[in-house]
Amino acid sequence: MPALPTNPIAVSLGDPAGIGPEVVAKCWDNRSAFDLMPFVAIGDPRSISAVWDGPIELIEDPRDADSAFDVGLPLIQLAAPQADIPGQPTVAGAHCSLDSLELAVGLARSGSASAVVTGPVSKEQLYGIGFTHPGQTEFVAERCGISSSNVAMMLAGPTLRTVPVTTHLPFTQVAERLSSSLIESRARTVLRGLQRNFGIAEPRLAISALNPHAGEGGMLGREEIELIEPAIAALRAEGWRVTGPHPADTMFHETARARYDAALCMYHDQALIPLKAIHFTDGVNVTLGLPIVRTAPDHGTAFDIAGQDRADPRPMAAAMRMAAECGAYRAQA
Amino acid sequence: MPALPTNPIAVSLGDPAGIGPEVVAKCWDNRSAFDLMPFVAIGDPRSISAVWDGPIELIEDPRDADSAFDVGLPLIQLAAPQADIPGQPTVAGAHCSLDSLELAVGLARSGSASAVVTGPVSKEQLYGIGFTHPGQTEFVAERCGISSSNVAMMLAGPTLRTVPVTTHLPFTQVAERLSSSLIESRARTVLRGLQRNFGIAEPRLAISALNPHAGEGGMLGREEIELIEPAIAALRAEGWRVTGPHPADTMFHETARARYDAALCMYHDQALIPLKAIHFTDGVNVTLGLPIVRTAPDHGTAFDIAGQDRADPRPMAAAMRMAAECGAYRAQA
Repeated sequence: MPALPTNPIAVSLGDPAGIGPEVVAKCWDNRSAFDLMPFVAIGDPRSISAVWDGPIELIEDPRDADSAFDVGLPLIQLAAPQADIPGQPTVAGAHCSLDSLELAVGLARSGSASAVVTGPVSKEQLYGIGFTHPGQTEFVAERCGISSSNVAMMLAGPTLRTVPVTTHLPFTQVAERLSSSLIESRARTVLRGLQRNFGIAEPRLAISALNPHAGEGGMLGREEIELIEPAIAALRAEGWRVTGPHPADTMFHETARARYDAALCMYHDQALIPLKAIHFTDGVNVTLGLPIVRTAPDHGTAFDIAGQDRADPRPMAAAMRMAAECGAYRAQA
Repeated sequence: MPALPTNPIAVSLGDPAGIGPEVVAKCWDNRSAFDLMPFVAIGDPRSISAVWDGPIELIEDPRDADSAFDVGLPLIQLAAPQADIPGQPTVAGAHCSLDSLELAVGLARSGSASAVVTGPVSKEQLYGIGFTHPGQTEFVAERCGISSSNVAMMLAGPTLRTVPVTTHLPFTQVAERLSSSLIESRARTVLRGLQRNFGIAEPRLAISALNPHAGEGGMLGREEIELIEPAIAALRAEGWRVTGPHPADTMFHETARARYDAALCMYHDQALIPLKAIHFTDGVNVTLGLPIVRTAPDHGTAFDIAGQDRADPRPMAAAMRMAAECGAYRAQA
């Protein structure tokens, strides 16, 4: 990996009533053990002090994060009308989580931050304040001027990276949504992302089948023949190192994983089952296709355990480390 | 585990041109290291001697397997018109694989064998000789007088057991095939199988969702609400310890796996992706719902590597050990 970037990582706290503030604070507590580079949190400091006794260093400029980082948790304060109670999400908290996200993205776009790590938000709460995106990823894409159809959600752990072609769809809508052009487009986003974010000059992509046993020559479904194989042929014709369609059940064991840099899967669970089975505490959500680096821990607000000192900071720490690593490759390019 | 049964395990060699003979022979070679109880192979001895130099002990009665086991690989010889060449399947070989399976099942039904382990067959070859079952499992069920709709295919490894409700279906037919009654029936087969084959008095079954995030309250699909939840309620009303529907991506990490004895999944890849990601070399196919114990290694004939001394015997050894264990629990019950 190249040298780490000099600008800090911008970390949005997510919903102030969720576990975001707690895991970010615990990351600062364990910054040495977790091997974290300086970061600046963005949000309401009361959401942190409600769940954590450590020192908060209010700053206004990300450039001050580096020196503040040794003294306390650097934080850019957002105006919030009220202090939320952990576990009790509010409309004001939803606004705060969105403002925090927006500022973090702005800092990364301007170059003041080397990457963005986003804390967990509540979609339900956001929908209540008029948020119309399916999730933070699409919001970030829009703020970066990128169509959300051109970004890809990668789940990345130390021994496996997976990307679903389709994401949050009912099971019965997956097959009709798939097309060769969608598979190709997603594959290109992933391949370029492996180059830009992970420094892999000639990335290897394994593409999964949709049907069991890869359709057994058409006996168990024809999507492999009609959609996936043509997409793979087109990608290979462009010079990319792409293999498949692979039967999904035999592509995720240790030996198989060593043969590719990322697996492109046809649907949400196909990508996330193996990733979370193997990398439950160190899997990171990385958005590919953006002009900035954006990662996120792969968990939600967990309102049910917020404020109980039970939240595990390791996924957030993994997201911060991966943001730093991707930021380093980006800065080098 | 109770004491092992005194009768040997009957092992069908599968297709003589596949890797079945090789992995069975390697199991005998490594019988101590693999901790195997005596078994008797059933098939054409030429399919073994074509790939292995060790001693074969031809026997006629499974009762002789125990004493023969120290001298050579005990084998009950089947008449076969020709010796198959490894990697080159023939019609005669397909007949031989079916005869071997039939005799192994017969020995277990009569009590002469404590369990059956089936070597890999080629469905394509079997279809060529008029075989009309989807696979060996359905054939074994029929020979045991059980409707194949009442048996369940479990994949079992040391830390995870999964069972798919639907098996070899195109992806687009999964949702329409699912029903509450099918889920309940499969669940009961699994729960009783955990009691009979694994000695678990009060088995815990985790049932997966079909849609991502378990459908998010209907936003991402309604099968959880309409099919799976009613099935779980009915099973609980019968006193079974059943949980779910669980989002499939968060039910297979180490901590989650410790909370149940088996996971019932809605489709093939949902069950087999996590099992093979975690237990690629020690996952075993166990048929539940039969009057006999039947296991199989979770791989195919692998004609492409047959006869090259490259086949890994560990899955076959795992199948033999599990057959012995299940046979012990059955004998105790």
